[in-house]
Amino acid sequence: MFNQLGLIGCGLMGGSFALAMKRAGLVKRVVGYSKSPSTTEKARRLGVIDLAAESALLAVSGSDIVLIAVPVAASEATFKAIRHLVEPGVLLMDVGSTKRDVVDAARRVLKERVEYFVPAHPITGKEVAGVEHADALLYSGRQVILTPLPQTDPKLLQKAIDVWSAIGCQVLKMTPENHDAAFAAVSHLPHLLAFAFFSSVYKQPAGKDFLSLAGPGFRDFTRIAASDPAVWRDILLANREEVLKQSMRFRHTLDAMEHVIRSGNAEALEDLIRSAAEGRANWQMATPKPASSR
Amino acid sequence: MFNQLGLIGCGLMGGSFALAMKRAGLVKRVVGYSKSPSTTEKARRLGVIDLAAESALLAVSGSDIVLIAVPVAASEATFKAIRHLVEPGVLLMDVGSTKRDVVDAARRVLKERVEYFVPAHPITGKEVAGVEHADALLYSGRQVILTPLPQTDPKLLQKAIDVWSAIGCQVLKMTPENHDAAFAAVSHLPHLLAFAFFSSVYKQPAGKDFLSLAGPGFRDFTRIAASDPAVWRDILLANREEVLKQSMRFRHTLDAMEHVIRSGNAEALEDLIRSAAEGRANWQMATPKPASSR
Repeated sequence: MFNQLGLIGCGLMGGSFALAMKRAGLVKRVVGYSKSPSTTEKARRLGVIDLAAESALLAVSGSDIVLIAVPVAASEATFKAIRHLVEPGVLLMDVGSTKRDVVDAARRVLKERVEYFVPAHPITGKEVAGVEHADALLYSGRQVILTPLPQTDPKLLQKAIDVWSAIGCQVLKMTPENHDAAFAAVSHLPHLLAFAFFSSVYKQPAGKDFLSLAGPGFRDFTRIAASDPAVWRDILLANREEVLKQSMRFRHTLDAMEHVIRSGNAEALEDLIRSAAEGRANWQMATPKPASSR
Repeated sequence: MFNQLGLIGCGLMGGSFALAMKRAGLVKRVVGYSKSPSTTEKARRLGVIDLAAESALLAVSGSDIVLIAVPVAASEATFKAIRHLVEPGVLLMDVGSTKRDVVDAARRVLKERVEYFVPAHPITGKEVAGVEHADALLYSGRQVILTPLPQTDPKLLQKAIDVWSAIGCQVLKMTPENHDAAFAAVSHLPHLLAFAFFSSVYKQPAGKDFLSLAGPGFRDFTRIAASDPAVWRDILLANREEVLKQSMRFRHTLDAMEHVIRSGNAEALEDLIRSAAEGRANWQMATPKPASSR
């Protein structure tokens, strides 16, 4: 049980975390700060936070748990803004979709206080941004990846595991490097492809007519193309090396499929499709037990 | 109201059409044929068809409405097998996802009897194949594209419109050429990309580990990668010119996005993402009123 959550970034992810902690009875009070005062005010009005802070530092003041939920490129500036109040016993976490860059920024800025930081990436989201879409169950039944540092305080790491578990997450640990390689493949590249694919249809002369004919397959394939532009700008830049590596692999597979299509090799094409289709049919998303019984 | 539906191809699409017609009270009896006798037998056991025919021709015999629901490359052979019983008054339709190739095959094989053929493409599907997934509501609330020929009998065209409307579809008409160009963009290319993307993740050394971390965005983006291999082999080959044209456009857009990622141009990247994200957020799938009140 915590006394006060200091929330920096009152958007979809941060707002949902605040609601989830309240729902689980894990926190008495939430003090929130967003770069835009109108967002902070909206979060207060919606009951997502209890008190609006005028700065990130003021949100940290008096908090025993702090969540940074900003686009990843804003992590370094956020660490700088709050470092003087990151003190022993305070559990500091983020929710960024990339981890190497955030961990590097934390090391640079927090120095020896980096031991209080437990980097976290919950595998969830929505194709709509903003605190108005915050949802107490966004994290329920999802995985969260923690990428602790060698110097991370083991007691704080355990506290972090307990908090995420209590709001319904399955907790996994890995290194920031392994995290970024894996998520380039299963999250960052698909977002890039979805943005590029939707644009390429949308911007062609007959694009509007074509879009009026699209069905449920298109709808699901492009759902993530509506994701938050500032968040994804930062992710794709922060993890660019791994993303470009994955894109290269994807292009090679696409080349191979186009080659058999062009040459009319039906058997080879069916083999390639069947291998993907069977793989996908046998894949299941990891879904830990949701916290709905709480 | 029809006396007998002759169903050639008792899979997901054909089986669902039979169930939908029965549900709407549009047909007294369904006689079905599939290439595999065990499929035909399963369809009979499940009540999707009333009588199993031993050949496509026998399924057409005595039927006043005939639906061909086979992978598109099998259309020509099917037309050949049934042409002697395609007689005045019989409404002959297909459900193929490509239309130029099917219409060409119909012209070649049926000759002057092509006037009884109303080419149809309902915009629906599931990522699972087989009659066991047939669903009376698969077509409800969806669009269906008809691509009639100049010589199509207007009375049969009207009957076709009435049948699809009665099972809950919104009926659109266009030329086979416009149809194939549009669906290369909004359906065939996304399937190709989903197959290629899933394969490229799946087949890399750490692929299995990566897949265990994938979340809801990945799940939706790759749903269509589980589609029926024989069906999609035929579609991608039949419409290869348009599909490869669309793939080229997509690659150009992807190139442009990778270029700004590589050069670290955050502003340009955000602009590209924002244009896609806003376009997608404003897009809505056309959803005619479902036939659930019937």
